[in-house]
Amino acid sequence: MTDPRPPGRPVLAIDIGGTKLAAALVDDAGRVVAYDRVPTPNAPGRDAEDLWRALDGLLDKVVADAGGPEPAGVGVGCGGPMTWPEGAVSPLNIPAWRGFPLRERLRERHPGLPVRVHNDAICVAVGEHWRGAGRERANVLGMVVSTGVGGGLILGGRLVDGASGNAGHIGHVIVDPDGPPCGCGGRGCLEAIARGPGLVAWAREQGWRPGEPGGTGVELAADARDGEPVAVAAMRRAGRALGIAIASATHLCDLEVVAIGGGVSQAGPPLFDPLREAFDAHARMDFARRLEIVPAALGQPAGLIGAAALIFAPGRYWNAH
Amino acid sequence: MTDPRPPGRPVLAIDIGGTKLAAALVDDAGRVVAYDRVPTPNAPGRDAEDLWRALDGLLDKVVADAGGPEPAGVGVGCGGPMTWPEGAVSPLNIPAWRGFPLRERLRERHPGLPVRVHNDAICVAVGEHWRGAGRERANVLGMVVSTGVGGGLILGGRLVDGASGNAGHIGHVIVDPDGPPCGCGGRGCLEAIARGPGLVAWAREQGWRPGEPGGTGVELAADARDGEPVAVAAMRRAGRALGIAIASATHLCDLEVVAIGGGVSQAGPPLFDPLREAFDAHARMDFARRLEIVPAALGQPAGLIGAAALIFAPGRYWNAH
Repeated sequence: MTDPRPPGRPVLAIDIGGTKLAAALVDDAGRVVAYDRVPTPNAPGRDAEDLWRALDGLLDKVVADAGGPEPAGVGVGCGGPMTWPEGAVSPLNIPAWRGFPLRERLRERHPGLPVRVHNDAICVAVGEHWRGAGRERANVLGMVVSTGVGGGLILGGRLVDGASGNAGHIGHVIVDPDGPPCGCGGRGCLEAIARGPGLVAWAREQGWRPGEPGGTGVELAADARDGEPVAVAAMRRAGRALGIAIASATHLCDLEVVAIGGGVSQAGPPLFDPLREAFDAHARMDFARRLEIVPAALGQPAGLIGAAALIFAPGRYWNAH
Repeated sequence: MTDPRPPGRPVLAIDIGGTKLAAALVDDAGRVVAYDRVPTPNAPGRDAEDLWRALDGLLDKVVADAGGPEPAGVGVGCGGPMTWPEGAVSPLNIPAWRGFPLRERLRERHPGLPVRVHNDAICVAVGEHWRGAGRERANVLGMVVSTGVGGGLILGGRLVDGASGNAGHIGHVIVDPDGPPCGCGGRGCLEAIARGPGLVAWAREQGWRPGEPGGTGVELAADARDGEPVAVAAMRRAGRALGIAIASATHLCDLEVVAIGGGVSQAGPPLFDPLREAFDAHARMDFARRLEIVPAALGQPAGLIGAAALIFAPGRYWNAH
């Protein structure tokens, strides 16, 4: 599909999450030139159209506030699973949308414009490749370590979609075959060990007492940075699992850069030091040892910037109809 | 590089191994139209030029015996490691070649013809994709379970090379982080558990008594097919490790087909049944469960056929200079 607008117009970028809906206008340098968000109307009893109305209102507001030209297209990152490239979405943490035809509805809302929907973690990885920690590198894995562990894979300079748009599920690389059960139904996946809520549950069992009720992965990461011993041990657990999964990934895909973002990654050295130690123990071949493992560079807007790249750079990031 | 010969001419395909050097003329349908081989002159004291002379004579003979036209190009599969795409090779099991400029020497031997050298396991995977078990599928992992465990990855219809031509090292996906040491220097890699010599050593410890001195993976596979209990247990061990590694690979790459060849794979159900059981336990998401895991289709000539495909189908299998 050829973009019908001249270059220079911004893209309307959307990030659909269980907590908030975010929208932005992003220019072709990857800059966020307008931004707003609303809480996801996710309470029991809210239906699919309640959610759509909230999104619709948000999009009107972002475009109107910017006062600028019509966007060049609409790029969306959304929690999975979804049918791809059709973009009928069933985000795990948004029960009201089951098979919701998000791409089709956005096409009706923006007739004549390209509309592209991909997994939210893939959009983060695309953002980091396009304008972040992986730019100008051909073989990059972008990761998000947060409520879940997701990612996206760029090989030979192009996003890998796989058979059904599901490539990049680094969170389900197996790091301990006899390890804890995973939300996917399997066992010992990276995500089962390193996801924020899993780390928080483990840390509480070991005696960690969070300030907030329940505690979050971000809080645990902050405590680890401050040297709290149980939080440090939790991050060591996560770091080891990440190092093993990344060694497997680079042996299979011969990567140049792995960029790691998400709330848990904010722990810094208490996470990255044991990660590198585990990686170094398992990745011994020269080609694997050249891998650079770095924090993600774009922070919170990475997903919106990547969603915009689906429109701005389709040859690299969108190879579907 | 554009092929200077009209279509229809065969490719001179070469397979360099520690036991034998094989050469063939392969036509563009993937048929082997001429074939010969010689033992690799690998005894202590043989030097790099002894090996080259043996290869040179073999190539003369295959082309002369066929009595046909000059080949369209030269494709080579060779044991790693190597510099890629330069093709200076240092096969682990051929000590006399360390940084041997194989591609350069073949270019001098065949001036004006395209000469392309890639890893031998990658050539097997390419062969299976081009004319074997993975044909007409876009996302395929080809595997060889033999003295080592190697492979090649085709995604979006194209061979994945990675940063340095080393993508496809499925044998070093980690299946048990505290498992046995691996020849790569790591621990718990698939290859450390499932390679033929490792299985043979394990089976002998458990009381397996091979007919041949020492025993081989092929013999162990045959005994497993015949129901010999220790051989069956060895294949269960290998199958479980394979199932875990394949689950990790398809979660990361969203594959359609995994094609498994090599001597150990000849065990059949005693290997494939526990493989599928482990895969099914770990691959629970819909997209992963659609994966087809099949025996390789081409048998012994797969590597030669894949080496020919490096010349016949460069857009798909060769993206270097």
